[in-house]
Amino acid sequence: MKILVIGGTGTLGKAVVSVLGDNHSVITAGKTHGDFQVDITDESSVKALFARTGKLDAIISTTGSLHFGPLEEMTAEQFNTGLQDKLLGQVRIALIGKAFLNDGGSITLTSGIVADEPIRQGANATAVNAAVEGFVRAAAIELPRGIRINGVSPTVVEESLEGYGPFFPGFEAAPAARVAKAYVRSVEGAQTGRIYKVW
Amino acid sequence: MKILVIGGTGTLGKAVVSVLGDNHSVITAGKTHGDFQVDITDESSVKALFARTGKLDAIISTTGSLHFGPLEEMTAEQFNTGLQDKLLGQVRIALIGKAFLNDGGSITLTSGIVADEPIRQGANATAVNAAVEGFVRAAAIELPRGIRINGVSPTVVEESLEGYGPFFPGFEAAPAARVAKAYVRSVEGAQTGRIYKVW
Ligand SMILES: NC(=O)c1ccc[n+]([C@@H]2O[C@H](COP(=O)([O-])OP(=O)(O)OC[C@H]3O[C@@H](n4cnc5c(N)ncnc54)[C@H](OP(=O)(O)O)[C@@H]3O)[C@@H](O)[C@H]2O)c1
Ligand SMILES: NC(=O)c1ccc[n+]([C@@H]2O[C@H](COP(=O)([O-])OP(=O)(O)OC[C@H]3O[C@@H](n4cnc5c(N)ncnc54)[C@H](OP(=O)(O)O)[C@@H]3O)[C@@H](O)[C@H]2O)c1
Repeated sequence: MKILVIGGTGTLGKAVVSVLGDNHSVITAGKTHGDFQVDITDESSVKALFARTGKLDAIISTTGSLHFGPLEEMTAEQFNTGLQDKLLGQVRIALIGKAFLNDGGSITLTSGIVADEPIRQGANATAVNAAVEGFVRAAAIELPRGIRINGVSPTVVEESLEGYGPFFPGFEAAPAARVAKAYVRSVEGAQTGRIYKVW
Repeated sequence: MKILVIGGTGTLGKAVVSVLGDNHSVITAGKTHGDFQVDITDESSVKALFARTGKLDAIISTTGSLHFGPLEEMTAEQFNTGLQDKLLGQVRIALIGKAFLNDGGSITLTSGIVADEPIRQGANATAVNAAVEGFVRAAAIELPRGIRINGVSPTVVEESLEGYGPFFPGFEAAPAARVAKAYVRSVEGAQTGRIYKVW
């Protein structure tokens, strides 16, 4: 299969590219690194990316930023940054990218454990991750030509513990390589509308 | 209790105001009707509303618009209208309103059955409603001074069947008066972080 991994140069994305690379032709896109550059918050940038990749068998997104901060000080403007980036950015990838998928192709987006397990300073993360999962459940029933869509919800990744660890007291981390297997399930499996939780 | 119902002049809101009015002092806000006018998509308008209401014991939101339309034609821009209105609008009510609540006060937001049960043309509605519920779950663990937050997820309302019925084939509708009871549970009960499903 020809697979595009947007965010394929990041902590999680690199592990996904590594495991899929054994059996597939994988293209990476990042903000500044990778085979292609793209900004998922910019409609014309995402359109230009797919114009350059051409037809694909799978689109994977392992990207998207959130707002983390205490609820007490949170503003609607800050909350909106996560909506525009990790949520609308991934939705945009799916809405634009689906036309570039071959019949029976797939889209896999990334949410996160905070969708189900709220943490301090995580109100935006819970809302955004829950919305990504909602979009996946709903888009699955409308996609044409056997195109599937799934989500992967990772716990905190072992390789990210230095930065994110303090936000996740007592949470079990998972190595990126373990999380990456869920993307393989989504791409090579037959399910749609599923959220693969790796916790 | 002194209770503000934003959207209190709408189909659902009128029923909520009616049942709470028996035992409480209820103020309504709407876009053009009600005791106060407000636009939940406008930060300064929401700030001005609370400056005028003063201290409250409960804030209820029964408002918020979504984008409905086929996934095939949906654009990120259309998807964003629901994010800005029903999602960020209600989050804004909570973020700004919480400072105007007396100790032990409550916030109640509105999601909808489509969060759990996707329908055709409903990708934005599922994502937005799921995000509202995520925000409720997460905000509940950070609110100070015994302030609680809950959500109500109504099925399609009987009084709205003429407009929305065709989107909900085979769904059981509920009279607005039945849905309204869930808002009473939220305001007068003791739970927080709960989504009351009325299906
Ligand atoms: N790490 C965790 O513990 C964890 C846990 C649960 C969920 N997640 C989720 O997994 C996803 C990836 O996380 P990560 O830790 O792997 O992130 P990361 O290491 O920071 O990598 C981010 C990736 O996204 C790219 N990128 C950044 N901004 C972009 C933009 N505007 N448009 C397009 N691409 C952009 C980066 O490209 P460049 O390399 O060019 O900068 C990079 O490839 C996120 O959605 C995160 O919320 C992560
Ligand atoms: N009706 C249903 O079957 C159903 C089912 C599930 C969930 N819901 C949800 O319940 C909520 C209310 O639905 P509804 O059917 O009762 O709606 P509705 O009859 O259209 O009433 C909308 C209410 O919101 C106010 N409003 C509109 N735009 C506003 C804005 N920008 N800022 C502040 N207030 C605004 C309106 O004020 P004016 O009166 O001044 O215009 C009115 O009070 C929505 O979130 C909807 O998604 C409804």
